[in-house]
Amino acid sequence: MLVAPGAFKGAISAVGAARAIAAGWRLRAGGVPARELPVADGGPGTTDALVGAAGGITKVAHVLDPLGRPVSAAFGLLPGGAAVLELAAASGYELLEAHERDPERTGSFGTGELIRAALDHAPRRIVIGVGGSATNDAGLGALRALGARLLDDRGRELTGVGADLARLAHIDRSALDARLAEVDVVVACDVDSVFCGPSGAARVFAAQKGADPAAVERLDAGLAHVAALLERECGVAVAEMAHAGAAGGAAGGFAALLGARLAPGAAAVLDAISFDEHLADAALVVTGEGCLDAQTLTGKAPAVVAARARAAGVPCVALCGRIELPPGRLRDAGFSAAFPITRAAAGRAEAMAEAERDLAAAAASLAGLLAVPAG
Amino acid sequence: MLVAPGAFKGAISAVGAARAIAAGWRLRAGGVPARELPVADGGPGTTDALVGAAGGITKVAHVLDPLGRPVSAAFGLLPGGAAVLELAAASGYELLEAHERDPERTGSFGTGELIRAALDHAPRRIVIGVGGSATNDAGLGALRALGARLLDDRGRELTGVGADLARLAHIDRSALDARLAEVDVVVACDVDSVFCGPSGAARVFAAQKGADPAAVERLDAGLAHVAALLERECGVAVAEMAHAGAAGGAAGGFAALLGARLAPGAAAVLDAISFDEHLADAALVVTGEGCLDAQTLTGKAPAVVAARARAAGVPCVALCGRIELPPGRLRDAGFSAAFPITRAAAGRAEAMAEAERDLAAAAASLAGLLAVPAG
Repeated sequence: MLVAPGAFKGAISAVGAARAIAAGWRLRAGGVPARELPVADGGPGTTDALVGAAGGITKVAHVLDPLGRPVSAAFGLLPGGAAVLELAAASGYELLEAHERDPERTGSFGTGELIRAALDHAPRRIVIGVGGSATNDAGLGALRALGARLLDDRGRELTGVGADLARLAHIDRSALDARLAEVDVVVACDVDSVFCGPSGAARVFAAQKGADPAAVERLDAGLAHVAALLERECGVAVAEMAHAGAAGGAAGGFAALLGARLAPGAAAVLDAISFDEHLADAALVVTGEGCLDAQTLTGKAPAVVAARARAAGVPCVALCGRIELPPGRLRDAGFSAAFPITRAAAGRAEAMAEAERDLAAAAASLAGLLAVPAG
Repeated sequence: MLVAPGAFKGAISAVGAARAIAAGWRLRAGGVPARELPVADGGPGTTDALVGAAGGITKVAHVLDPLGRPVSAAFGLLPGGAAVLELAAASGYELLEAHERDPERTGSFGTGELIRAALDHAPRRIVIGVGGSATNDAGLGALRALGARLLDDRGRELTGVGADLARLAHIDRSALDARLAEVDVVVACDVDSVFCGPSGAARVFAAQKGADPAAVERLDAGLAHVAALLERECGVAVAEMAHAGAAGGAAGGFAALLGARLAPGAAAVLDAISFDEHLADAALVVTGEGCLDAQTLTGKAPAVVAARARAAGVPCVALCGRIELPPGRLRDAGFSAAFPITRAAAGRAEAMAEAERDLAAAAASLAGLLAVPAG
């Protein structure tokens, strides 16, 4: 049995959920083993999920936060030569107080430092999860940390915050970290937004990162300006590229300057943990998340797990805190079954506090039901 | 698949629960039929469950309530010659306002009338569910309605309310309805209380029926007095008899004067609906109730369903509003699995309002999981 849950946001991580499900399963599974393979989709928790699934190790780097202050950020090294990191770890929205949030003033410099820290371990591939960012800098800050020089039209160097987008006249790549040329960079994108324009990064996400309406317009104009520059200088048309708007355009910047491949986050994560190989051996997949809803079906990890399980002919069960989809839509999405887990909680807070125990109990019931000879 | 839920108290009846589960099952069961067999344990809802399970008909009789006022009370006629009725229908606690509750003043006369109404249909057996009574009259009121004369030590006739227990000197059975001799009377007892004494009907239940402490003592003394009289006049030792205290001692009174067999309620109901025969054909039993807890395991219908399923080697799944038992105790009780059904409700009231839809969805998941080839 393959245990491949995502996170139960606010209640239990994907790694914790996998452990709870496996523990409950063992209570009644009569020896049928449970393989823990927590999943993620590029958002916060991606590093832990990949490290947990692949049996990797976690390292910590001391980098700068979105406002240039010191912060400790974790990244992971996986067996087989991949490194994994999250933009949110160094440049995340959650690192700032509410009054500090301003995507014109913030930058992704720390994420570039984190990539350099990963490069020190000579990985063959770097997987970058880009959910939860505080920034709208097209990744310029990170590129500067990696050696690029960001110049205005008078040759003066820019730091690469959001407000610098419109002033950027040239990117000098001559000092870019040479090790990047040897590495396969994959950006695991949790959203499918374009670089600029009405459905672009700034117009869709900058307001929730703290920009007022005028700032949103300036940021969008800045992104459009950078898109033209990247096409001119790098020959990469980020304005046309799927996912290029993820993390305030950092995905597009990385695609243009680092040759990064932009991938739907869940698919990238599942590939990184060799999900399909594990699936081939499984008689059942158990996935889950805090709330299974219409959003889930837009490419979140549990939906991708279900789709791949169906393609492989393996039944897939979801165990969830809330289930907002009717049976027909669940079936169409590839879920053989979806069970709520909340057993006796009086409300939402109590349910979240009991998620671990409830998950284990639901998994025990699954095992008992499937009559993998019950003990 | 056999669908044998109890009631979800306050949310959905056993009949409604069975219908919802069957409807959800059909969504994904690929043609595997669901046989609806709602269950009960002698408490309110027993008549509906039996009529629903057996395909019987419901009749209504006009009788007297615990205070002698007119009330309409239903009873059921089942194929095969059994009648079913509930003491609660004519003599129930829910029929009285709070200020009217006084087990010294109330009596079960209307239940006797209801039994006579059933006798008019010449049943071979009468199943009487005795949960939810307002009375503590040892069934004297009902016996009077059936023709018995209740006499005090000066030969004056008593009406048979709780206060008459201590005054009873003789029961004249000569005019008892002669049809009773031809009928097998089964009392389905939802509680396992004795007739009198510290664990007797009055001491355990009279307070919640409205008796003050002094009245409780008078009622208990009255029951002890009646127990001695029944042993002397009928040769039946109700003081020693299991379940004789059910429904304020009505179970004991019916045992002594009607030759009634006192049975644990769930077992009596399951026997009446030929549960074991249906079970023999089933690959799976789905049961359920509002709250699966320690009380359930004291002989409530879902626990008896699970125990019989295990004895027959058939997996049994419970679908419940709340589940308060840990996996180990569920397994020990014979449940292969127990899943909570509440999918997206914010609280208890909303969960109860959505019970029907949630039950159907849970059943659809069960069907999908068991891969009765999903559509």
